[in-house]
Amino acid sequence: MKPKIAISIGDINGIGIEIALLSHEKIAKICKPIYCINKNLLKAASKQLNIKIPKDFKTFETKGDFEIKPGDVTKKSGKYSFDSFMDAIKLADKKQVDAICTLPINKEAWSKADISYKGHTEVLRDYFGKNAIMMLGCKKMFVSLFTEHIPLKKVPKKINVEDLTRFLIDFQKSVKSKKIGVLGLNPHASDNGVLGNEEVEIFKAIKNANKMLDEKIFTGPLVPDTAFSPMSRKNYKYFVAMYHDQGLAPLKALYFDQSINVSLNLPIIRTSVDHGTAFNIAYKNEKVNLKSYINAIKEAIVLANSKK
Amino acid sequence: MKPKIAISIGDINGIGIEIALLSHEKIAKICKPIYCINKNLLKAASKQLNIKIPKDFKTFETKGDFEIKPGDVTKKSGKYSFDSFMDAIKLADKKQVDAICTLPINKEAWSKADISYKGHTEVLRDYFGKNAIMMLGCKKMFVSLFTEHIPLKKVPKKINVEDLTRFLIDFQKSVKSKKIGVLGLNPHASDNGVLGNEEVEIFKAIKNANKMLDEKIFTGPLVPDTAFSPMSRKNYKYFVAMYHDQGLAPLKALYFDQSINVSLNLPIIRTSVDHGTAFNIAYKNEKVNLKSYINAIKEAIVLANSKK
Repeated sequence: MKPKIAISIGDINGIGIEIALLSHEKIAKICKPIYCINKNLLKAASKQLNIKIPKDFKTFETKGDFEIKPGDVTKKSGKYSFDSFMDAIKLADKKQVDAICTLPINKEAWSKADISYKGHTEVLRDYFGKNAIMMLGCKKMFVSLFTEHIPLKKVPKKINVEDLTRFLIDFQKSVKSKKIGVLGLNPHASDNGVLGNEEVEIFKAIKNANKMLDEKIFTGPLVPDTAFSPMSRKNYKYFVAMYHDQGLAPLKALYFDQSINVSLNLPIIRTSVDHGTAFNIAYKNEKVNLKSYINAIKEAIVLANSKK
Repeated sequence: MKPKIAISIGDINGIGIEIALLSHEKIAKICKPIYCINKNLLKAASKQLNIKIPKDFKTFETKGDFEIKPGDVTKKSGKYSFDSFMDAIKLADKKQVDAICTLPINKEAWSKADISYKGHTEVLRDYFGKNAIMMLGCKKMFVSLFTEHIPLKKVPKKINVEDLTRFLIDFQKSVKSKKIGVLGLNPHASDNGVLGNEEVEIFKAIKNANKMLDEKIFTGPLVPDTAFSPMSRKNYKYFVAMYHDQGLAPLKALYFDQSINVSLNLPIIRTSVDHGTAFNIAYKNEKVNLKSYINAIKEAIVLANSKK
């Protein structure tokens, strides 16, 4: 049976709804999507976009009645994108769907609507009281982030054996890979301590995690600037990056269009597109890239099936 | 007339000499190479490699008489690689050659030979008393490094308006590009100060440099994780990275084999391969990649011609 996937519609002033409408036919072949948007808003969007609503476009009636303002950061669209996301979470929490997939929200619009979260992952962390792991990537390569949205200067202090060991074990349990590359922090992974000392902690965490899993799963600390070279990528599909740009800059250099965002280590499955609301091209009938969304749906299906 | 290029032979126990012998025919068509290695050592290497010395293989007799030990870190090979490099520098300094190109040395071997420099660039900085700029890349994309071999935790403090302005101007004068992308330091380039504050300094330095050059050369601070996405790379060929891995991890993910290393802002021209001694495959007649070396020679020629 096809898995049910709740889709939060993202910021209605952005490209999310267009992506959902244009991809429906394709994704309806592999899953049963339920879109968290009410019929009135859906009709308004469909009219403005001049894209017909597919007949089997099943919705969950997230409440909200307001004018769509293409490309604008508004309080109402911010609140609605949050409500749509919360409805999707609840559907998954009540097991009425097998996974959720989220379309992009706008942080500034959330802020205008007095929503203090920085993004989807923070909401999930708070809702489930679990330390969600953020992983980005595509079929060819996935990167999980040990630290995320913090200033670079705060990263080195965050690296300690205990937290990293926990992270590695949680990550491995989520992705079940038998071979995971763990990056160092410093240039040349410190060149044996000449260029920093955080690699000592990373090394110990790797050792601990391998011991606790009773298997040599993790390798590292890998030299960060060669970790994503073609040769190294032959060895690993899954990487652990110590900080945001260490993992995401190489990923986006290589696989910008195809990448998705996955939240791991949670009671529910959540995948997401790896791009923003693209206000600059919203409702303009410009070419919108559907790859990231379709990949996010596919990964949600893979994860849902592997959980059964 | 073909430019003369002095080639320092690198660590003789590594793959440098093999690369030089195998590439000679090709590079001799576009420049006049002078190899800093004495004939006895050259003969010994040629014999061990079972590769004939080309007839027009012109050498500069860097002194040294010792046994080649393929793949070994030795004091003698460390000293010799340093001496070969110094000879090349002197040839360029005395204008007997138009540029130098360096083959890989081994840092540990330098250390064994009581040479305290961390690498070629540090030697050049010391020799000329000038702040050499390290740039890596290939025809498609070049990255210069504002900070290099320092622990990550020391990077944020290094970012200040004065030094960065100077760096930007020196860099522009070296590469003469009219469009250079300057990266931020923090995730999302700090999201307007939410994730760090170093972008304020970077922004000011960009403004200063543009003002002093009386032209809008520099753009930024660019969001680091999308700076190297395919779309962004259409806009820039030259980038300034705030730290080692920020620039080099995406570069090596994209162009590992082809990349070279260029020292800018010096009285002489120096290019280099962007790989190490590869002791594991030295003198084994395994397939050695010549791309980086040949690209380094080509870039030396481009720079030598543009200087004339």
